[in-house]
Amino acid sequence: MAFEKVTREQDYSKWYNNLVEDADLAQHSSVRGCMVIKPYGYAIWEKMQAELDRRFKETGHENAYFPLFVPKSLFEAEEKNAEGFAKECAVVTHYRLETDPDSEGKLRVDPNAKLEEELIVRPTSEAIIWNTYKGWIQSYRDLPILVNQWANVVRWEMRTRLFLRTAEFLWQEGHTAHATKQEAIAETDQMVRVYEEFARNILAIPTIMGHKTESERFAGADDTLCIEGLMQDGKALQMGTSHFLGQNFAKAFDVKYATKEGKLEHVWATSWGVSTRLMGALVMSHSDDEGLVLPPNLAPIQVVIVPIYKGLDQLEAVTDKMDPIIKNLRARGISVKFDIRDTHKPGFKFAEWERKGVPVRIAIGQRDLENGTVEVARRDTKEKNTYELTDIENKIENLLALMQEDIYTKALNFRDNHITLVNTWEEFQEVLENKGGFISAHWNGTTETEEKIKQATKATIRCIPFDNPQEDGVCVFSGKPSKERVLFAKAY
Amino acid sequence: MAFEKVTREQDYSKWYNNLVEDADLAQHSSVRGCMVIKPYGYAIWEKMQAELDRRFKETGHENAYFPLFVPKSLFEAEEKNAEGFAKECAVVTHYRLETDPDSEGKLRVDPNAKLEEELIVRPTSEAIIWNTYKGWIQSYRDLPILVNQWANVVRWEMRTRLFLRTAEFLWQEGHTAHATKQEAIAETDQMVRVYEEFARNILAIPTIMGHKTESERFAGADDTLCIEGLMQDGKALQMGTSHFLGQNFAKAFDVKYATKEGKLEHVWATSWGVSTRLMGALVMSHSDDEGLVLPPNLAPIQVVIVPIYKGLDQLEAVTDKMDPIIKNLRARGISVKFDIRDTHKPGFKFAEWERKGVPVRIAIGQRDLENGTVEVARRDTKEKNTYELTDIENKIENLLALMQEDIYTKALNFRDNHITLVNTWEEFQEVLENKGGFISAHWNGTTETEEKIKQATKATIRCIPFDNPQEDGVCVFSGKPSKERVLFAKAY
Repeated sequence: MAFEKVTREQDYSKWYNNLVEDADLAQHSSVRGCMVIKPYGYAIWEKMQAELDRRFKETGHENAYFPLFVPKSLFEAEEKNAEGFAKECAVVTHYRLETDPDSEGKLRVDPNAKLEEELIVRPTSEAIIWNTYKGWIQSYRDLPILVNQWANVVRWEMRTRLFLRTAEFLWQEGHTAHATKQEAIAETDQMVRVYEEFARNILAIPTIMGHKTESERFAGADDTLCIEGLMQDGKALQMGTSHFLGQNFAKAFDVKYATKEGKLEHVWATSWGVSTRLMGALVMSHSDDEGLVLPPNLAPIQVVIVPIYKGLDQLEAVTDKMDPIIKNLRARGISVKFDIRDTHKPGFKFAEWERKGVPVRIAIGQRDLENGTVEVARRDTKEKNTYELTDIENKIENLLALMQEDIYTKALNFRDNHITLVNTWEEFQEVLENKGGFISAHWNGTTETEEKIKQATKATIRCIPFDNPQEDGVCVFSGKPSKERVLFAKAY
Repeated sequence: MAFEKVTREQDYSKWYNNLVEDADLAQHSSVRGCMVIKPYGYAIWEKMQAELDRRFKETGHENAYFPLFVPKSLFEAEEKNAEGFAKECAVVTHYRLETDPDSEGKLRVDPNAKLEEELIVRPTSEAIIWNTYKGWIQSYRDLPILVNQWANVVRWEMRTRLFLRTAEFLWQEGHTAHATKQEAIAETDQMVRVYEEFARNILAIPTIMGHKTESERFAGADDTLCIEGLMQDGKALQMGTSHFLGQNFAKAFDVKYATKEGKLEHVWATSWGVSTRLMGALVMSHSDDEGLVLPPNLAPIQVVIVPIYKGLDQLEAVTDKMDPIIKNLRARGISVKFDIRDTHKPGFKFAEWERKGVPVRIAIGQRDLENGTVEVARRDTKEKNTYELTDIENKIENLLALMQEDIYTKALNFRDNHITLVNTWEEFQEVLENKGGFISAHWNGTTETEEKIKQATKATIRCIPFDNPQEDGVCVFSGKPSKERVLFAKAY
């Protein structure tokens, strides 16, 4: 596949789509709205998974697995949740195919194999999980339950985009049960902070933590916390959510526990998740017109070494020089690819690894051999420098750490420069139109105003940030009194 | 849940079901045929996954992810494969629910949201993957493709058993594409050997590698290799398969590559998989009437320490003594649980950890503190010994290694004692009825005879072992000439 050269400036959306395919991250499949995650893209997702999974376990969670299907009667038990997802449910109605008598070699659905009750392919697992927890919880001794699941879910989408919005996606969903409201709220808070720290230190993406407004809440939640990132085109992306579910699911599934005092009480719940959407956030936060830019902490290949040589003798000389260095780098946990393919020229290789976002490229040719040097190129800044081989392993390790920081700082500066305080409706529209990013503005707190602003501008309230300063003001839209600013943005 | 005391002798099947639930491995869900894998069971599965994944990567494979759904027209493209799975397919026909006007608060399938083409929930992914590979393969430079997927699959089963046979199960499926027949056959062979080594060294289960007969082959394969284990009740269990798919899928999906010489050739394929069925094999190979027995290499908790004390002072003294030991054990990569729950008595804890198969239990009471000793109990043999604390970490580490070996050796001896050579039909029936296990017998090589033996005895040919000695004989059933013995058994 040739990389169709479209810059972010020219067409951000096309740039994104091309990049995802050309960097071998993912592609569309022949199933409407479902993607194929290619090996290189999946390797990045695996790194995200490993980092998240470690954090979940460190905070006391265990993994488990619940069924893909939810019987319709369970699905509809928590009404708000069911209503929220009903319009995007894939439904299994039959369990057998048969030979099509009208068409040789073809199959058709066997009409005699209709299910008595339809099965919903999980769009989220609260229903099936709370129906299970009912059997796990009798007394306070059984609480808390701190479980996470890595799974695929399906939400039928009409307009899909690779990673950002697909009918099937991969995610993790934590589902916890607690004896007290206070404990459940603390868990909800803890997990959104885990996401924020992960986004910051691993994805190198600064995010803003806050509460969703009522209209943007998860269906069935009493409160939804989120992390919001800002993409290079000035649009926001919801990167993770953590829901305080109150006793809604416990009531819908009649899950009670005996307290120490012997009273029966409904259990308190949370759920929290991030998905392969993070891959989209990653691409859109750091990449450039040449392709993917990966923070070193997520790169499946952190260092690529491209030898420049003529003939096997020269290759052997380069290999002899680099072999111990590669070994030393790997011993430090740095993943290194020594690209000795003889089917491609160095220029081709440079472009390929640039497109795929490998953080550090080392080129070594004959003159380098003579001088005891290599050429080191940073993917993020495209800076090239000649390094002496002495102590090269330390230099590379330090460079990777520096790049991780620099990529984060660049994204942070961009984000901070794109939080604009506005005080009038004219300003609001003007900033939204010409600058983009987050707009910090007063809002009168009603769903009605929020909806009108959305209708007028497509901007939504991304969140009410944690520790939001309280100040008197007037709503930019309605002119009514307001106690705090909230963050608006156009969003993915 | 109380552990219902049923011995293997009394009712092997009930013993198995109870154990799986009472050791907190899995349970039935409210979805017909689908199970919930509980945290403790899932932790064991994660260990299996990590060990397998490492082996796949070491043999050059990468992970990727393909859609859950297969459009019917793709599914039916490879006819034998489609025919083989048609009768057990869950089918998605609709993509939306709507409010049921006849029933308040209920939902129904929206008749206006019928899919133009039905989607099959993947029972296996050859079809969707080969349809994707078509776009990945142009020339010999694109080969081989060595991809694995960790995923859930659905095969509708009427009679299900936890782990052994469930409608939804978790598995890995490798799908590789090669330029030559020879290379594909070598890959098929390599992967069954990876499974055998994994079963031996990690699961501590000896397996026999061999070829399936034509009638037991994977639908769409030219050859199926397998590993067959023997359970304690004398029944065999197919634990993994590796298929040489010839050019069947390449032809069905028209996948050709340009050779170095510029000719167009169909690509050669393999697929190979193991599933959560391995959890069933694990339980049935080693466990006893008291519960699960885990080989140390798979145990989420390898060592449990149960303090025996009265009052906080005594607990503190025990804790002071054990803390550095726990730290040292963990530094060696040994997972240790220090069970200081004050809600349960030591006897309860002993029974619980025994039921859950924790390999080594260390008990320490006041007299031990005075003597500088602990009591160490092995789960597999139930042997108890007093150990002096001097150098205890080494002793425990060595004990775990020894137990891994002993558990394997025990299973190996059992297996070897249950391979019986028989030469007559009477003997065949007698051994099958009274002794069970593998029966090594001559067979005339026809599907017809194989089928008749199955009808008469429920025994099937488990495999034709690798490096099977060639010897003249007569088929035990038909009396016709035979060139080699094959392995029969009743199987799960």
